[in-house]
Amino acid sequence: MISFAGGIPAPQLFPYEEIEEAYHQLFRDITKRAEALQYSISEGYPPLRDWIVEGLRKQGLQAERHHVFIVNGSQQGLDFLGKLLINPGDEIAVENPSYLGAFQAFNCYQPRYLTVPTDDDGLRTDLLEPVFQKNPAMLYVMPNFQNPGGVTLTLERRQQLIALSHEYDIPVLEDDAYGQLIYEGEPLPTLQNLDAMARGGEVENGNVIYSGTFSKVLAPGFRVAWVVAPKAVVERLVLIKQAGDLHTSTINQMVVHELLQQDFMVDHIQKLRSTYRARRDAMLAALDTYFPDSVEWTRPRGGMFVWVRLPEGMNGTALLEESLEKIKVAFVPGEAFFADRTGKNTLRLNFSMMSPEQIEEGISKLGGLLTQKIPNPVHG
Amino acid sequence: MISFAGGIPAPQLFPYEEIEEAYHQLFRDITKRAEALQYSISEGYPPLRDWIVEGLRKQGLQAERHHVFIVNGSQQGLDFLGKLLINPGDEIAVENPSYLGAFQAFNCYQPRYLTVPTDDDGLRTDLLEPVFQKNPAMLYVMPNFQNPGGVTLTLERRQQLIALSHEYDIPVLEDDAYGQLIYEGEPLPTLQNLDAMARGGEVENGNVIYSGTFSKVLAPGFRVAWVVAPKAVVERLVLIKQAGDLHTSTINQMVVHELLQQDFMVDHIQKLRSTYRARRDAMLAALDTYFPDSVEWTRPRGGMFVWVRLPEGMNGTALLEESLEKIKVAFVPGEAFFADRTGKNTLRLNFSMMSPEQIEEGISKLGGLLTQKIPNPVHG
Repeated sequence: MISFAGGIPAPQLFPYEEIEEAYHQLFRDITKRAEALQYSISEGYPPLRDWIVEGLRKQGLQAERHHVFIVNGSQQGLDFLGKLLINPGDEIAVENPSYLGAFQAFNCYQPRYLTVPTDDDGLRTDLLEPVFQKNPAMLYVMPNFQNPGGVTLTLERRQQLIALSHEYDIPVLEDDAYGQLIYEGEPLPTLQNLDAMARGGEVENGNVIYSGTFSKVLAPGFRVAWVVAPKAVVERLVLIKQAGDLHTSTINQMVVHELLQQDFMVDHIQKLRSTYRARRDAMLAALDTYFPDSVEWTRPRGGMFVWVRLPEGMNGTALLEESLEKIKVAFVPGEAFFADRTGKNTLRLNFSMMSPEQIEEGISKLGGLLTQKIPNPVHG
Repeated sequence: MISFAGGIPAPQLFPYEEIEEAYHQLFRDITKRAEALQYSISEGYPPLRDWIVEGLRKQGLQAERHHVFIVNGSQQGLDFLGKLLINPGDEIAVENPSYLGAFQAFNCYQPRYLTVPTDDDGLRTDLLEPVFQKNPAMLYVMPNFQNPGGVTLTLERRQQLIALSHEYDIPVLEDDAYGQLIYEGEPLPTLQNLDAMARGGEVENGNVIYSGTFSKVLAPGFRVAWVVAPKAVVERLVLIKQAGDLHTSTINQMVVHELLQQDFMVDHIQKLRSTYRARRDAMLAALDTYFPDSVEWTRPRGGMFVWVRLPEGMNGTALLEESLEKIKVAFVPGEAFFADRTGKNTLRLNFSMMSPEQIEEGISKLGGLLTQKIPNPVHG
């Protein structure tokens, strides 16, 4: 079985030695080890929050510890923000397609979805105004290497999105799970950054709530992620956290903080990028070689996913069944990523877990299956 | 400052060496270390769930892995069960007083509380039937060494409670956070056990949902706890968990499981019991010596708390202010533990964090303050 179905980091790339050593360091310090095993505050471990503030200040933002809130993985941030922002029946705006896990989090709070189309440059901001005119409770958007689309919102569109969010006063939830996994070009400013710059760099009083995570650059097993938001939002999230699970694991927050201090992190992130870049390149090359011309796909600058659009009328779910049975290649049919249940002819392909050789083999098999099903004038 | 305010384990008793060694063991195994850092299933780490099943079977219960669900500390179990069982406006039955953290979890789901009085033998089951006749969505109860009351529900009352829950078909949420911290007498069967025994020992189809935690016997910083419930309940909790935070930290579940396998745990739990027993004894002796006769308190057989009732008309919150200012002794005023906001003349005293000497000093000071305020014919 070759699987392009998951969306998880390659376990060969976890920095095992450094993580084990970080636990050591923690247990060698009798004050820290006692703190690590005890209950702690709902806001999150203060030095970890300060490290995040430091990063925001390097971007030119004015932020304080009270703007940062630690969660058990970014899924918990989405759930808590759903709880905070969505009342049953509220409309919320999402990209079409958008992240399935966000729908799962939000659905508990019974929103109705307003979908905004996307293309190779991300959310179609030229189509956003009529959606904002309906005054949705928020816009949920993943500007970098979107899951599932793999696309990146351009700088121009980011600016347009923020201008519209100011004009209509719509809160924006920016999910940046993949921002660090960039394989070409320069990183673009976050939506939160552009929003804050309109107020002299202040995160306070902003329209954007930012969600970041250590799952992609360190390890998902820790369940440590964060939210950056105006103080009043963080204060309400803290109350939800107190009622919800008291706090995120103290020892995990401290180990993550310990690792972030260390010099190896720069090389580690470079290694993640070069490994995943090679896998992305292998997938794009194989798609060019083996997929019929009538199939389209995105060319992600980062992240973990290539998004495939089959000719209209084809069905990703049916293709998956056939693929599993005949060629033992797995992927995720795209339909579930569309709040409006369109997109039956789409697929999501993950490239983070398989080697370049496995990627070529899997894509060649899948291309062969597709070629049988799609008479292709060029290849035929 | 002498504090009887908290409710947390004594950090001197954490098994630091054993925990550090457990991390080592994990990182020495290249399969386990990869698993520990990766995403995992929402249900929880299967060997940890199997270990819990093993314990249930030793009690004579018929349970399977699918009856066990791992959460980020028992607070998350309470939150998820609130989400599952409570619709806005539903009535739920609680002991009076009851655990403040449970109110915080449940309040998000907007219940109305039906209070059941308690005495030195726990919930007054002789007063339960009229409450069950109102058909509450559930009864939340802490039968062992209740927080805040310190009291233990007698076997007779447990049997009566279960008989009534069967007669009226009311779900019972049994919070057993402190069950392992027993300092005298034999442990009583859990409500879940008594409930299951009515069906030949089967957990399946039961009326009781059981909540247990590793926070008191290992360390709260891990945030690892569990729920035992019929399969259909666990399946719905799993969906809530997927949407809520995907899963509990993999590495923490695996380290907890590693520790539970080890021989030191028996001695470790004995050490917790003997240390806390000595602290409880010191507190009860000091109360006997220094508190006025018109003040009453419970004599807990386990757990972390003694519950104090001042003469009617006195106010715990006002006493706390005076105590902090004049004698620098902290405690928790009892009012917040009463869903009906009675109990203004009560206090909760924690004995787990202070040494016997500090306990004697703090109680003698508090007794002195009380003696000034309560003219006592015997001592006076």
